[in-house]
Amino acid sequence: MTQFDNVSVVKAANIYFDGKVSSRTVLFADGTKKTLGIMLPGDYEFGTAEKEIMEILAGEMDVCLPGESWKTITGGQAFEVPANAKFQLKVKTPVDYCCSYIA
Amino acid sequence: MTQFDNVSVVKAANIYFDGKVSSRTVLFADGTKKTLGIMLPGDYEFGTAEKEIMEILAGEMDVCLPGESWKTITGGQAFEVPANAKFQLKVKTPVDYCCSYIA
Repeated sequence: MTQFDNVSVVKAANIYFDGKVSSRTVLFADGTKKTLGIMLPGDYEFGTAEKEIMEILAGEMDVCLPGESWKTITGGQAFEVPANAKFQLKVKTPVDYCCSYIA
Repeated sequence: MTQFDNVSVVKAANIYFDGKVSSRTVLFADGTKKTLGIMLPGDYEFGTAEKEIMEILAGEMDVCLPGESWKTITGGQAFEVPANAKFQLKVKTPVDYCCSYIA
């Protein structure tokens, strides 16, 4: 889908790494949550609490998931990150993403 | 308000200046539109089509509106830009903003 309907959007951004990574939180009627974010080129490590599905809408990056080797991900692809895990990213071009949190 | 309820959010980001400025479009039931965006430090010129109200949620920048001198704007402040105008910004720290388009 190209837009999310009947949702709430938190006004304030989530800002990380001096703004090189930022996102907006979208709340759904069923109680689930997604973030829509932008990552600028750079190397990052993130940690998860819940399981996450990262859908890349545009851009290119390399990702290293727990116990896996580096792989390249581009717009149109997605990957899953387990709960309570760390993962590394090398963002090559500005990445537009949608992250779904799976309780 | 801290969040917008019963809205639609366009999934894909609006990306400008190599991603140093990006925003998400929020559509309201009454047909109006806002964008929620982030601007990283840098010098920018923007042009308006409709009149805009720029509300700064966080961060600091200097703005030069048509026919005015530079002034500093910080989180909690807002300014209006006329339709079909150009304005300049010098963003000092990452700026989180909400832009309302007034038809």
